[in-house]
Amino acid sequence: MPLITLLTDFGTHDAYVGIMKGVMLAIDPSARFVDLTHDIPPQAVDVGALVLRSAVPYFPDGTVHLAVVDPGVGTGRAAVAVRTPRAWLVGPDNGLLAPATAALGGAQAVHALDNPAFQRQPVSHTFHGRDVFAPAAAHLAAGVPPHELGAARAGLVPSDLPPVEVTADAARGAVVHVDRFGNLLTNIDRGAVHAFRDQSLSVTVAEMVTAPLRATYGDIASGELVALWSSWDTIEIAVRDGNAAARLGVGRGAAVVARGG
Amino acid sequence: MPLITLLTDFGTHDAYVGIMKGVMLAIDPSARFVDLTHDIPPQAVDVGALVLRSAVPYFPDGTVHLAVVDPGVGTGRAAVAVRTPRAWLVGPDNGLLAPATAALGGAQAVHALDNPAFQRQPVSHTFHGRDVFAPAAAHLAAGVPPHELGAARAGLVPSDLPPVEVTADAARGAVVHVDRFGNLLTNIDRGAVHAFRDQSLSVTVAEMVTAPLRATYGDIASGELVALWSSWDTIEIAVRDGNAAARLGVGRGAAVVARGG
Amino acid sequence: MPLITLLTDFGTHDAYVGIMKGVMLAIDPSARFVDLTHDIPPQAVDVGALVLRSAVPYFPDGTVHLAVVDPGVGTGRAAVAVRTPRAWLVGPDNGLLAPATAALGGAQAVHALDNPAFQRQPVSHTFHGRDVFAPAAAHLAAGVPPHELGAARAGLVPSDLPPVEVTADAARGAVVHVDRFGNLLTNIDRGAVHAFRDQSLSVTVAEMVTAPLRATYGDIASGELVALWSSWDTIEIAVRDGNAAARLGVGRGAAVVARGG
Repeated sequence: MPLITLLTDFGTHDAYVGIMKGVMLAIDPSARFVDLTHDIPPQAVDVGALVLRSAVPYFPDGTVHLAVVDPGVGTGRAAVAVRTPRAWLVGPDNGLLAPATAALGGAQAVHALDNPAFQRQPVSHTFHGRDVFAPAAAHLAAGVPPHELGAARAGLVPSDLPPVEVTADAARGAVVHVDRFGNLLTNIDRGAVHAFRDQSLSVTVAEMVTAPLRATYGDIASGELVALWSSWDTIEIAVRDGNAAARLGVGRGAAVVARGG
Repeated sequence: MPLITLLTDFGTHDAYVGIMKGVMLAIDPSARFVDLTHDIPPQAVDVGALVLRSAVPYFPDGTVHLAVVDPGVGTGRAAVAVRTPRAWLVGPDNGLLAPATAALGGAQAVHALDNPAFQRQPVSHTFHGRDVFAPAAAHLAAGVPPHELGAARAGLVPSDLPPVEVTADAARGAVVHVDRFGNLLTNIDRGAVHAFRDQSLSVTVAEMVTAPLRATYGDIASGELVALWSSWDTIEIAVRDGNAAARLGVGRGAAVVARGG
Repeated sequence: MPLITLLTDFGTHDAYVGIMKGVMLAIDPSARFVDLTHDIPPQAVDVGALVLRSAVPYFPDGTVHLAVVDPGVGTGRAAVAVRTPRAWLVGPDNGLLAPATAALGGAQAVHALDNPAFQRQPVSHTFHGRDVFAPAAAHLAAGVPPHELGAARAGLVPSDLPPVEVTADAARGAVVHVDRFGNLLTNIDRGAVHAFRDQSLSVTVAEMVTAPLRATYGDIASGELVALWSSWDTIEIAVRDGNAAARLGVGRGAAVVARGG
């Protein structure tokens, strides 16, 4: 039974996501779906890219990951299917798919979704999720070879996520996501602090507050600020039993520096 | 494997929707579900009717569409199952089901859900979704003939959606829904502008702003107001890379006029 | 096909819930999921306990109910699997599971989830949903006997829900949940008013407003305050076609007294 995950910025107040599933079930009645999230902030391609990357490694091999955060719908951006060693990705080629593709072992092939035979006709100018991406995902799940979906392409548009600057004793990154609990997720991963990983680390947020990096919430008191390795395996700033974003008044884009010492 | 879609105003903060699925799985363990949305504004029957109509055409033949927006629960309104050429509809007979029924080819039969043998007993006074509608949908999906669910009825209560007034050179309708992106969805469809469809169209909202009807977002600059054919195949007013509802300060009910010339 | 329900406070803006499903599908590709809700207020164990209890009786025998509202993650609280006569429960042993366990016939066995072979290694300090609870639920669904998951335990931590005080002519409880419609759900069940159940009941909220207990909304006029038996089979205070929480300005914790006479 083919498995398709969905990530969009469509929200759940309309039936857009349900319509995509209806289109896919009409193509492959055995398709099964797992929603990653549909609450990516509208048109926030880089947030979608991070959340998608955080989720794809946990799914079985052969899963089709369908992602639509697509401010360029109706313009010249390409629609693509990506083959990786472990899974498929389908979505607009605007940076959304690149981090997840890397997390799945890199692109072995990229194909445009430009074969009208595998689109829903007539293709709407505003809802490629229904007419281009969902049909492609369902056909891949049903075993259609990707080269039938359209022309091969050289590669993917990279994401424009902020870089991490690594020096001998510090890694300088940023808050890239705030989760429901107010935890501040950064882009500083274990590789970025490899040079000083044997030292105790301290993490400074927005040039104003410094917290020690701890192994677990159990090591700190309720209400205290702490840095932890997040479920993304990047540094996260949290308040035990509290909300770090509200406490510090910071959000996406805030500078974060991890230092050994 | 029978397919059942769900549309309600129950929200997702409680377990009401999950309970309905549990009841259905206890009747038919092979049932599969697709959520259309559970965020219809509380008791907004006409919004539910529009969103339901927008979604049902995309599902495979034989799907059971279960919809519950039911301010009259516990009063005299009927609970019904509707057979159409393509699919089934189950819900309260309060206007919610009529537009979707028409979109599926019209009602071939309407049955009340008044047979206690196919209800969950005792029937609650406040939660017919669990005790009346979900059991009916699961029994239909499992192959129970609709006349066993209850007495035949002559037809459906019509929806009270606003009409579109069509003249030789204009169609006058209204904003009937605002989606997550702030796009203003109207009730003016292609039929309403058929008489002047070969001319360039302009669309006036709330008697204050006029925008040209374009084929695609690609035809306009970022931040510009535009009218488009929506994914519902009705006229939609949007701001490229922006939020039309916030920009114009208008919402549901605002007058919309499409003119040729 | 094994059935697993999920209830968490993770929200749906992140991919945490999707990741748990991916982990479970990698263990048992035939697993099917029903979401109860992921919008339990963050770390509100007692709300989670009530919503879970309200839902579990409606699911088929053999269902695995996976619940994660876990402010103590990374501290000494136990992770457990519970066997009841009708179903399985998996989650932190912090009071979350106790009311649902009772509703399913009581605990026949409780096992800690401390066998590393059935955890996802390395176990994160912050996301036991992914690394401990989801693997345990999927293994139970796939038929692994619970004693293989870890050591037997004597019982469950009870919930700290407020008690109901019952006298000969009154039951004193509290608002324990406000649903999407603004209905005030209390903890006063039919047993609490058994002694005076043959009398007409009146219900006083927050020592300020008294409403009669009615059988159905149909018995009252639009805009009127009323008390009803809720879908939880506890007393609920509602406003017909309105929002009781907003009208009265009360919420969780407000005192409620039901009196005969």
